[in-house]
Amino acid sequence: MKITLAQLNFLIGDFEGNTDKMLAAVAQAKKEKSDIIVFPELSVCGYPPRDFLEFDDFIAKSEAAVIKLAKAAQDIAIVVGSPVKNPVVEGKDLYNSALFLVEGKIKHIQHKTLLPTYDVFDEYRYFETATEWNIVEYKGKRIALTVCEDIWNIGNENPLYRVCPMDEMIDQKPDFILNLSASPFSYKQANTRIHIIKANVERYKIPVFYVNYAGAQTELIFDGGSLVVSPDGKVFDEMNYFAESIKTYDLEQVTEGGKDRPQPKNKMTLIHDALVTGVRDYFGKLGFEKAILGLSGGIDSAVTAVIAARALGADNVRLVLMPSQYSSDHSVNDARELAVNLGCQYDIVPIEEVYQSYMQSLKPHFWGKEFNVTEENLQARIRGMFLMAFSNKFGNILLNTSNKSEMAVGYGTLYGDMCGGLSVIGDVYKTEVFELARYMNKDGEVIPENTITKPPSAELRPDQKDSDSLPDYAILDEILHLYIEERQGPKEITARGFDEKLVKRVLRLTNINEFKRHQTAPVLRVSPKAFGMGRRLPIVGKYLA
Amino acid sequence: MKITLAQLNFLIGDFEGNTDKMLAAVAQAKKEKSDIIVFPELSVCGYPPRDFLEFDDFIAKSEAAVIKLAKAAQDIAIVVGSPVKNPVVEGKDLYNSALFLVEGKIKHIQHKTLLPTYDVFDEYRYFETATEWNIVEYKGKRIALTVCEDIWNIGNENPLYRVCPMDEMIDQKPDFILNLSASPFSYKQANTRIHIIKANVERYKIPVFYVNYAGAQTELIFDGGSLVVSPDGKVFDEMNYFAESIKTYDLEQVTEGGKDRPQPKNKMTLIHDALVTGVRDYFGKLGFEKAILGLSGGIDSAVTAVIAARALGADNVRLVLMPSQYSSDHSVNDARELAVNLGCQYDIVPIEEVYQSYMQSLKPHFWGKEFNVTEENLQARIRGMFLMAFSNKFGNILLNTSNKSEMAVGYGTLYGDMCGGLSVIGDVYKTEVFELARYMNKDGEVIPENTITKPPSAELRPDQKDSDSLPDYAILDEILHLYIEERQGPKEITARGFDEKLVKRVLRLTNINEFKRHQTAPVLRVSPKAFGMGRRLPIVGKYLA
Repeated sequence: MKITLAQLNFLIGDFEGNTDKMLAAVAQAKKEKSDIIVFPELSVCGYPPRDFLEFDDFIAKSEAAVIKLAKAAQDIAIVVGSPVKNPVVEGKDLYNSALFLVEGKIKHIQHKTLLPTYDVFDEYRYFETATEWNIVEYKGKRIALTVCEDIWNIGNENPLYRVCPMDEMIDQKPDFILNLSASPFSYKQANTRIHIIKANVERYKIPVFYVNYAGAQTELIFDGGSLVVSPDGKVFDEMNYFAESIKTYDLEQVTEGGKDRPQPKNKMTLIHDALVTGVRDYFGKLGFEKAILGLSGGIDSAVTAVIAARALGADNVRLVLMPSQYSSDHSVNDARELAVNLGCQYDIVPIEEVYQSYMQSLKPHFWGKEFNVTEENLQARIRGMFLMAFSNKFGNILLNTSNKSEMAVGYGTLYGDMCGGLSVIGDVYKTEVFELARYMNKDGEVIPENTITKPPSAELRPDQKDSDSLPDYAILDEILHLYIEERQGPKEITARGFDEKLVKRVLRLTNINEFKRHQTAPVLRVSPKAFGMGRRLPIVGKYLA
Repeated sequence: MKITLAQLNFLIGDFEGNTDKMLAAVAQAKKEKSDIIVFPELSVCGYPPRDFLEFDDFIAKSEAAVIKLAKAAQDIAIVVGSPVKNPVVEGKDLYNSALFLVEGKIKHIQHKTLLPTYDVFDEYRYFETATEWNIVEYKGKRIALTVCEDIWNIGNENPLYRVCPMDEMIDQKPDFILNLSASPFSYKQANTRIHIIKANVERYKIPVFYVNYAGAQTELIFDGGSLVVSPDGKVFDEMNYFAESIKTYDLEQVTEGGKDRPQPKNKMTLIHDALVTGVRDYFGKLGFEKAILGLSGGIDSAVTAVIAARALGADNVRLVLMPSQYSSDHSVNDARELAVNLGCQYDIVPIEEVYQSYMQSLKPHFWGKEFNVTEENLQARIRGMFLMAFSNKFGNILLNTSNKSEMAVGYGTLYGDMCGGLSVIGDVYKTEVFELARYMNKDGEVIPENTITKPPSAELRPDQKDSDSLPDYAILDEILHLYIEERQGPKEITARGFDEKLVKRVLRLTNINEFKRHQTAPVLRVSPKAFGMGRRLPIVGKYLA
C-alpha cells in the first residue's frame, strides 16, 4: 500500500483555492500509484478558521468542498479535515473531523477527541469532543484516523486530558495511524513533535503518518516537518521545514524500519526561516507585495529589514531614515549602509521641522512644563505618521520593528514605533535579535558591524541609552523568559539569584504594559509563548502591578 | 434561615482588597443575623483572571485568601468562589469552584461543571469539568452549590452541554440552589437571566439565590441584578443594576412566594448606565482620575464626552477641539457649546500648521501624487498625536470615540481617531449613538441639537459627508447587526430584502478591516456580540473578503 502525505499551505476561507490545490495533489498522488492521500487538519477551510466557524454559510461551503473532493476520490482514497455538523441538539454544534473519502462517498468520519484550548488554541470554543472511535478498513488494511492533539496526550508528564483516543481504537487492531495536523511552529516544536510521535509508536507498535501544514496564517507559522515513523520507533522520513511538499511512502518499506536521520534544528536557522515565511505569507495571502519600514541604524529595524528583503525581495522593501536632532551621525550612516547592502530603495525624511511645528502649536498649552516623555513619544509618533503616510500613498504595508523585550516592559511608544501591520520580531528577545543579526551575517556582512556592536539607544534625548532605563538585556531577558515562557512567579525567579527589587520591577512593568500590547499588530510566533492570542491577560488588574 | 447575597465589585488579583471587602460584608451579614453569606464566582481573585490562572503564585494567593475567609466563618457560613487545584494528574490543573466555609474550615467544595468557552469566555482554557456532584448540609438545610453557567443549560433551545449538574444533584433533595455568578452585561442580559433562573425553578421546584458581580473589568461590565426566585417561579427580589449591594433574605419568606416586580429595562438606560460604569471602573481600578478626548462637534465625541463627565466628573474631563481647514464653523461652535454645557475644560488646537509642515516634508517624496486618503488620514493622525501629547503631559487617559458601525467597516484612521486607551462607544452602532444622545438630552439639552441633527461628516476634505462613502446608517446598521450579532451569511441577509451588492460590500469591508480592530483599545461591551475578545477572526483570510 502506498500513502501520500500532502504538506500544503492553505488560505483560510479560500474554499475554491484550497480545493484546487488538493485536487492537483490528488492527481500527482495518482500518478505515483498511491492508494491514499492525506491532507492536514481542517484543510478544506484552512486553520485556524476561528469564529468563521460560527457561520452556517462557512460550514456549508466546507461541506461542499468535501463533496467535491469525494467525487475526485476515484481509484484513490482521500483523507481530509473538515468541520462537520453535530446532529445531536445537546453539545456544541460542530465536530473537527477527519473524513475518509472513497469512490465519490464519505466512507468514514472520525471526530477529533482532544480539543486544544490553551495558548493560541480555542478549539473547545467551537467543537464537541468525540465519544465514539472506530477504525476504517480499506484495501485490506485497518486504519486509525486521528486529528492533531488526539495523539498528544501521550509522552508528556502532565497530560491535559482524561482519555486517549488511540487507547480506544487499539483493540480494533489498526495497522497504522494517520494523523491530520495543524501544529504551529515554535523553535522547540520540531523536537517535541518527534518525541510525541515516537511515544505513540512505542505505545501502540504501529507506524504513524503525520501530516502538517507548511506556511503562515497571520501570526501562526506552520513549519511542516511532516513525519513518518516506523514501528521500530525510528523516523522513516521527516519532510522539510517551511515549504510545501507532497511525498508518497510505501507502507511495507516503512514497516521494515526507520533510519532516524534528523534534519538540523539550529534555533537561529529555524527562527530566521520562520520569520521569512511569516512575512512572505502575510503579504502573499493578503495580496500585497510591498513593505515599508523605518530604519533607525539600530539592530531591531536592521534585522527586520533583512527578513523583509529576504521574504519579499529587495525591490519590494522601502526603507525610511528619519533622523532627529538627537540622532547620532553613525545612525544615519549605519542605516544607509544597510539599505545599500540590501539593495533597497530608501528615503531620508528629517523629523525636526514637524517636531518644531508641534511644539509651537502645543506651547500655549504646555506653558511652564518641562521636556519629558511627552516630547520623546512625539518624536517616535512623528516617525510613525511619516511611515503611515508613505504606506497610504504607495500601498506598502508598514512592518513593525519592536522586539519582545521592549514589548514586554513597555519600552516603546504606542502609535509611534509600535505602529505597523505585522510585528516581525515581537516574539524575539533583544539578546536573540543580536544572535539573529550574527546569523544573518554568517556568509558576509549584511548588517553593518557597528549596528551590532554599539550600545542600543532610542535616541529620543541627548546621549540616551537603553541601559539608562532598563537593566542589561542579558539579565532582563532571562527574567522575562522565566516569567513569560516558564510562568514563574516573583519568588521562584528571585530564588534563581536575581535581585528581588529588579524582579518585582520587571514583572510589574510587564503587567502594567498589557494595554500597549493590546493595541499592537499581530506578532509572528516563534517561541512557545508569544504575545498576542496565546497570552491573554487582563488590562485592568492589580496582580504584581 | 437567613441568606445574604453580596453583589460586589472586585479587582482582579487584588487579593488583599477583595478579602477585606468580603470580611466587611461578612461583618454586616452577621449584624443582620444571617446564616449564610454568598459571594460571586471566583470572588477571591476577581473575574476573569485569564492567564494569571497559569501562575502557581496566583493560585497560592487565592488559596491563602480562602483560608483567611474560612477563619472568619464563625457563626456564619461563607460561600465563596475560588480556583482550586485538581489533585489528579490527568486533565487540566484547576477547577473553578464554590467553597462552603464554616467554623474555620472548608466544609464542602463543589466544582463547576459547565465551562463557558464562547464569546468572551475561555473557561475550558483553564479548568477541568466537575464529575462529582454533592449537596452540602448546614443547619438542617440541604444546599445545592452551582457556579454561573452550571444552571444555564436549561431554558434554551440549543443547549451547549450534554450534562446538567442540577439533574445530578436533585435526587439528593436540596432545599434551595445557590448560584455564584460572573455574568457580564449586555442590553439583553437582565431579561435572559430572569428567564433562565425561572426555567430552573420550574424544573427543580426549589428557590434559587443567584449572586452576580457589579462593576467593570476592562471591557466586561457586570450589571449586578442578583436574583432570588421563589418556588412558585416568581421573582422574590432583583437587586439593583450597576451598583454594589448586600441584602439578606429570609428563606421562609422566599419559600412563600415571589411578587415578580421587575425593574425597568429600557435599552438606552441600561447602555448609558453600563458605559458610565465601564468608564468609572476602568479609571478607578487603574488608579487614574482624568480623561481627555477630542471633540469634533460630531455626535460620537459628544456622546463619549457626556459619558466621561458623568463617570468621572466634569472637572476630570479635558476636551480638545482641533479644527482644520476643512472644519465647518458649526463644528467648533457645537463642540464649544457642549464643553460649556458640561462644564469641562477645553483647549483649541488648530491642526493646519502641523499639517502643512508634514506636507512640506513629504513634498519631495510625494511629488506628482494627488491628494487622497493619505492626506485625510494624516489630519486624523495629527489630532491623535496632539491628544496623546496632552495625555502624556498631563496624565489624562485618552478616550476613544469610534462607534461600532465605523469600526465594523473600517471608516476610521488607525493611529488617528482610533487612538485611545478605552473605546467607550465601540459596541454602539451609529443609529444607537443617536438614540443615546436623545436619551442624554431627555431632561434638558446637554448635547447641542445641531450635533444631533446635522449629517455626519469626518470633515477631512471639502464638503465631505459619511454618506459619500457609506450607505445610510439605518441600512448599514441593520446589515451589520444581522452579520455580527446574528451571524447570518450573505444569502440570508440578502433574503431579508437588502441589495445583494451592498450586502457583499458591507461584509467584505467588515472582514478586511479586522486588522484595524486588532489594534484598537478594549471596547466596552454592551451588546451580545462586541468587537474584541468576544469576536475572534483571522486577519489574513479570504472568506467574504
